[in-house]
Amino acid sequence: IDSRLPDVGTTIFTVMSRLAQQCGAINLSQGFPDFQPDPALAAAVGEAIAAGANQYPPMAGVPALREAIATKLQLEYGAAYDAESEITVTAGATQALFTAIAALVSPGDEVIVFEPAYDSYGPAVRLQGGVVRPVALLAPEWRPDWAAFRAALTPRTRLVIVNTPHNPTGSAWPREDMETLAALLDGSRVCVLADEVYEHMVFDGRRHESVARHPALAQRAIGVSSFGKTYHVTGWKVGYVFAPAALMAEFRKVHQFNVFTVNSPAQAAFASVAGRAETWRELAAFYQAKRDRLRSGLAASRLRLLPCAATYFQLVDYRAISDLPDVAFAEWLTREAGVAAIPISVFSHDRADRGIVRLCFAKQDATLDAAVARLVCL
Amino acid sequence: IDSRLPDVGTTIFTVMSRLAQQCGAINLSQGFPDFQPDPALAAAVGEAIAAGANQYPPMAGVPALREAIATKLQLEYGAAYDAESEITVTAGATQALFTAIAALVSPGDEVIVFEPAYDSYGPAVRLQGGVVRPVALLAPEWRPDWAAFRAALTPRTRLVIVNTPHNPTGSAWPREDMETLAALLDGSRVCVLADEVYEHMVFDGRRHESVARHPALAQRAIGVSSFGKTYHVTGWKVGYVFAPAALMAEFRKVHQFNVFTVNSPAQAAFASVAGRAETWRELAAFYQAKRDRLRSGLAASRLRLLPCAATYFQLVDYRAISDLPDVAFAEWLTREAGVAAIPISVFSHDRADRGIVRLCFAKQDATLDAAVARLVCL
Ligand SMILES: CSCCC(=O)C(=O)O
Ligand SMILES: CSCCC(=O)C(=O)O
Repeated sequence: IDSRLPDVGTTIFTVMSRLAQQCGAINLSQGFPDFQPDPALAAAVGEAIAAGANQYPPMAGVPALREAIATKLQLEYGAAYDAESEITVTAGATQALFTAIAALVSPGDEVIVFEPAYDSYGPAVRLQGGVVRPVALLAPEWRPDWAAFRAALTPRTRLVIVNTPHNPTGSAWPREDMETLAALLDGSRVCVLADEVYEHMVFDGRRHESVARHPALAQRAIGVSSFGKTYHVTGWKVGYVFAPAALMAEFRKVHQFNVFTVNSPAQAAFASVAGRAETWRELAAFYQAKRDRLRSGLAASRLRLLPCAATYFQLVDYRAISDLPDVAFAEWLTREAGVAAIPISVFSHDRADRGIVRLCFAKQDATLDAAVARLVCL
Repeated sequence: IDSRLPDVGTTIFTVMSRLAQQCGAINLSQGFPDFQPDPALAAAVGEAIAAGANQYPPMAGVPALREAIATKLQLEYGAAYDAESEITVTAGATQALFTAIAALVSPGDEVIVFEPAYDSYGPAVRLQGGVVRPVALLAPEWRPDWAAFRAALTPRTRLVIVNTPHNPTGSAWPREDMETLAALLDGSRVCVLADEVYEHMVFDGRRHESVARHPALAQRAIGVSSFGKTYHVTGWKVGYVFAPAALMAEFRKVHQFNVFTVNSPAQAAFASVAGRAETWRELAAFYQAKRDRLRSGLAASRLRLLPCAATYFQLVDYRAISDLPDVAFAEWLTREAGVAAIPISVFSHDRADRGIVRLCFAKQDATLDAAVARLVCL
């Protein structure tokens, strides 16, 4: 069989979670909570099933859920999106990203990706015949290298993928970077794909800079978010996209023939919560406390903590402990120290090793404490 | 915005279900049941949520569900598929089809599609730069035109899409056609994508000819099925694929970056039933009775009934009632007679009108009777 993606293996998240399970390690690798969701949300699924929400919902999503998403975009970002024509429910954020790329990128089109970058972007672009143009985010703040961006922008550029809050670095773009991007794209036909799944996990009083807040970007942007991340149910696989109607029409042309529609009981359950601001506004404090617990625990370790402004990920520099490359160190850490982590070299095209791994702190305090107890011994 | 699919509109299923709802018509258009699933299956979702099945399951699917699927393929078709490397759970059959096409079809590759054909195949192929080569199924039995197939097969042929039992015609390939296909592909590098979502709805003692029964095809085939169709929960959006390990590896490369994984509570629920043969073996008699009820009711109408060997669809020729083209007739029927149907011209590349629409009989007896009462008046 000729492979369409000959150099693609299994995603690092599957590799590390599988290894964690095999070794009985504490799994701080793949990004998911180890605690239960709100019982009311869980109960709402059963109620939806009993009420008969078991057949194909509308292709773009359950209307009440799309209305709730529109309400949220208005409340949170002051943005007016039409539930009928500008919002679509997806089978998770990954499906949203893949579908948006398939809808927008033709063979030969160039796509600017800021690195480190989530591992689905590149293969999704290449599968459509697109060409990835990597632009570095500059440590330690992981802000875009705008000079490199200017050099990467060409008449063939079709799409820029922006991910803020940023996975895996835990950084978040300040308003200034959004404005710089808007200025640089002004007058072009370039679209923006905004991966904002950690939108509600921004710390220390920062503000999330959604594309929805920036009209000059919003007019050319498909925004992506995730109910799995926001409501602690990554396995339910429900996310959504918002975009101006003309862009959304292109998205839906592909969406309808990719997944057609999304799990109806889960959609009905999210419809009951998605417009309620208290829930998502509690998240920042909730995860900031977990971040602080992990960081203060690790202060006694030989791991060096990088800044963490957002998301539920903490980067640590382990070079005082080991000079293994990060992929080997993550494997060693899982097997020998009993704590699974994600190496971050896999998120850059050149696989450059920085001696850094990512720890997920979306965990019960007891889980974090147990991991800290193991890590401080290294 | 330059569209990647300029001539693609909204899928006929969305168009007709929306119109049915607007008009308050009895919806015999889109293929879904109007009755509830097994309460035990419904309860199993709530139990899975309570038990904590709320985070990312493994990328290829919940292991117990994959084991149950392997058991089923063994029991039903005598086929040995390895749960670890040869079975993947998908977000419905449509996502399985789209992903398989994306994994296998490169720009310039030719794909043979038998027409009439489900409306997702063509756009999915064209999105990857593939070229659709239509081959006719010949009425009234809708068996392949093998002479045309031979003429369509070239060194550029990469994939053949086979759909049996067949939507929208309600036909099913006899063993002989499977053997002809196997012989014609012998020695080639052509793959087969087998859409078998109606596998358990075959009537009058017929046997479903799964690719899994035919080793010469199975070795080059990705088979697709749907828990939504089999368990009366089309809205839950869970299906699966089976294929030899080398093909499955290519499928998963795309799957992991398309949806990554599938709704975990639903997977857990299906794991409890998917290996139990009684359930799926009851389906043929269950739907045969509904077919017969619809057909005997319509015998008194001016609609001419075409043969129905399988699926939950009945074709009817309406030319004694109207000389409208089928798209216009389906709209008229929905608005004026209060019964929504699917025109079948949309499933052929030339949109040839045959004066035939499709009725779905996956409905409560009372629904079928009410529709019949309206249709016999025409
Ligand atoms: C889709 S599995 C990856 C989950 C995630 O977002 C992460 O761990 O970065
Ligand atoms: C994905 S909506 C279409 C349902 C179906 O299979 C049909 O009606 O043919």
